[in-house]
Amino acid sequence: MKPAIGLTQACELIRTKQLSPNEYLAQCVARADEVEETLKAFTVRARLSDLQDQSGTGPLMGIPVAVKDIIATKDFVTANGSPIYKNFTPSEDAVIVKKIRSLGGLIFGKTVTTEFAWRHPGATTNPWNSAHTPGGSSSGSAAAVASGIVPLALGSQTAGSIIRPASFCGVIGFKASFGAVPREGAHPVSGSLDHIGFFTRSVKDAVLAFNLLRNTEITEDDSIVIPELSIKPISEFLGHSAPRIAVLKTPFDDLLSTEQTNTLKIAEKCLSDSGAKIEELTLPKNYWNGIEALAVLMSCEAAVIHEQHLSQHPELLSTDVIELANKGNAYSASEYIKAKNLQKELRLSIGKYFEDFDAILAAPATGEAPKGLDFTGNPIFCSLWTFIGTPAIALPVNKSSNGLPLGIQLIGNYKEDEKLVSIAAFAEECFKKQN
Amino acid sequence: MKPAIGLTQACELIRTKQLSPNEYLAQCVARADEVEETLKAFTVRARLSDLQDQSGTGPLMGIPVAVKDIIATKDFVTANGSPIYKNFTPSEDAVIVKKIRSLGGLIFGKTVTTEFAWRHPGATTNPWNSAHTPGGSSSGSAAAVASGIVPLALGSQTAGSIIRPASFCGVIGFKASFGAVPREGAHPVSGSLDHIGFFTRSVKDAVLAFNLLRNTEITEDDSIVIPELSIKPISEFLGHSAPRIAVLKTPFDDLLSTEQTNTLKIAEKCLSDSGAKIEELTLPKNYWNGIEALAVLMSCEAAVIHEQHLSQHPELLSTDVIELANKGNAYSASEYIKAKNLQKELRLSIGKYFEDFDAILAAPATGEAPKGLDFTGNPIFCSLWTFIGTPAIALPVNKSSNGLPLGIQLIGNYKEDEKLVSIAAFAEECFKKQN
Repeated sequence: MKPAIGLTQACELIRTKQLSPNEYLAQCVARADEVEETLKAFTVRARLSDLQDQSGTGPLMGIPVAVKDIIATKDFVTANGSPIYKNFTPSEDAVIVKKIRSLGGLIFGKTVTTEFAWRHPGATTNPWNSAHTPGGSSSGSAAAVASGIVPLALGSQTAGSIIRPASFCGVIGFKASFGAVPREGAHPVSGSLDHIGFFTRSVKDAVLAFNLLRNTEITEDDSIVIPELSIKPISEFLGHSAPRIAVLKTPFDDLLSTEQTNTLKIAEKCLSDSGAKIEELTLPKNYWNGIEALAVLMSCEAAVIHEQHLSQHPELLSTDVIELANKGNAYSASEYIKAKNLQKELRLSIGKYFEDFDAILAAPATGEAPKGLDFTGNPIFCSLWTFIGTPAIALPVNKSSNGLPLGIQLIGNYKEDEKLVSIAAFAEECFKKQN
Repeated sequence: MKPAIGLTQACELIRTKQLSPNEYLAQCVARADEVEETLKAFTVRARLSDLQDQSGTGPLMGIPVAVKDIIATKDFVTANGSPIYKNFTPSEDAVIVKKIRSLGGLIFGKTVTTEFAWRHPGATTNPWNSAHTPGGSSSGSAAAVASGIVPLALGSQTAGSIIRPASFCGVIGFKASFGAVPREGAHPVSGSLDHIGFFTRSVKDAVLAFNLLRNTEITEDDSIVIPELSIKPISEFLGHSAPRIAVLKTPFDDLLSTEQTNTLKIAEKCLSDSGAKIEELTLPKNYWNGIEALAVLMSCEAAVIHEQHLSQHPELLSTDVIELANKGNAYSASEYIKAKNLQKELRLSIGKYFEDFDAILAAPATGEAPKGLDFTGNPIFCSLWTFIGTPAIALPVNKSSNGLPLGIQLIGNYKEDEKLVSIAAFAEECFKKQN
């Protein structure tokens, strides 16, 4: 698979006029034309002539961005992966889409999402083997970046919808600390859990995307402001010479494929060979209660969000969404509040662990992308970190015997995104050396 | 009733050494000794010698502050108005108590609160007539300031627990925008609604207390940062010469006593005579749904907070608290989430009304303090504004035929606390003129 020019490099080449935006856009459209028949990453794409006409100025000048189709765009249907919205064009762009355009970026098209970013899959195939899922719910965004169509795609994660497809497709997936990226104008799954994030082909590119598109002010939408990130040399950044990496043990490690377990060991060895100190991390039981609490928050909030859909268009909803809403409707207010309280408690208490290490190394998924398109994979290895709201980044490491990507995720402390991306860049270098 | 020296003046006299802290403290203790037998504002008081020994330095040097007994103090029992906690001394001060001490202020004593700041009344009597309630839940704090014992008392409001007792006792009660004052270390009634606020004898004093004790950083406890407030001349502040005051009509105005209605008219006339433009405000029905939504949030959150109390010490709880918890336990997660959503929606949408006027004028209570100590009064005229989280301030206006205080409240836009206090200072002057 021929990778197109990545985000940072493309921005730089365009800025210094070594690459014309129109030429770059033409390359991206050509790549899409080449693979889309099988890949099916997009629900709708801009025409090349429209992209070329719209090219603005700014740090994203001429950069085509793929946007998950739960994020509102005023010039494209925003179908939310649901037939209910098949003809729905929002009157306004989502805040993050406005940011992209104001910086000179272009909306290349809308990417396939599972229905309402929940379970029911879309048509996208895995770029490495079309018989396999690309993962979900940000299926098309992960696939579009992995196929070298665009240098940047927006996704969202409510349990494991960025980290998992990034890992299945072999690209970088980055979700910053909860609240750090604007989500106004994205169809919610669950306000307490939804993160907007980025698919790119390098850590550096993910950092650039975050810096340009992050929240720069507090809004009512549970937002926080994380200052611009910079990738720093480990020694300068940490105040100690080598990163300390904690390898997470989970109560469900028996779900890991042999190959995924092996990938974790390879990652561990690469990091260790590069001087990182590796230790093991087990968490007390109340942390793992976070996975059930995530299910409580998600189903309860989804039940309210889908109330109108259920009453007005039940025949257009999958049983997946109906079951989610029914599950949510069965919880009491007390159960919901306790789940919210646990979230606050863990967000605060996780900090003490990060006094002893700099990042957590964990599986991003159970293994390679499952065969078939009906099941986008198990998010369980991501759920706790989405619940807590800590930043996480998926990095590819190697390939399975089937030729599918395998990777890891690194998790940082809440609001310590800069440390996380610095360690992720260090890890990226380590993994490159072993290939 | 002889008023002791107010907060701003006392701070200034002590700073310029015209008043010794020990002398001021002795005056305050003497005043308490004089009235406490009947007033019963305090559950516990510091000894004069202890106060005099502790006197620190800083802008609150030598200033005695009365602290509502749901706010943790490490040197006094913090009983939360409940026999369950009758011997409980916290290991740490609440954040706001730490602030007071770090600025040189002193904890004069703990003031009577209703049980867990809910309905079941304490022993405090109204300083103007001991046969009447002082209001609740911040009963002792309002009474202590009104009696001239202390220049500043801390209270809390979850529905109407600052504005109402302030009005019943004839003092200033100020609750800033939701989240602007630290509440860590206060026993919660309902995290979505609890505000910590101030009782003082002038608007200027309330502003000083806020400026010294407000949140100066965002914490995880739903906090916001409101910069220091200053009372500005209306013409300079508003960009138009006269304040525009909206007189609120509510669906329950028939609950107002004739005297309270008359007090509102007097206030309106005073403001109008001083040049204010008066208009009438009616709000659409979805705003008034906020009152029921407040009851949903409060009961659901209280049910979780009191779960352990109910299981371990049911015999030590009033039926008021048991009923509140039982009510909360009956709500579904969906009902709770809808109440939260309405709160967010109204906090955002109320802003458009404030484009047309600068403050809302409303009743703080149904009328004068009710006779008897069993019922602390109806909070319904405060509930909507506590729910939305807008800043509110109670101002005394006149007296009832029984010689009890009557007043009004002014309400500002969320996060526009400075405009509100400026208009409140203007109104305070207007009301003084008519007396």
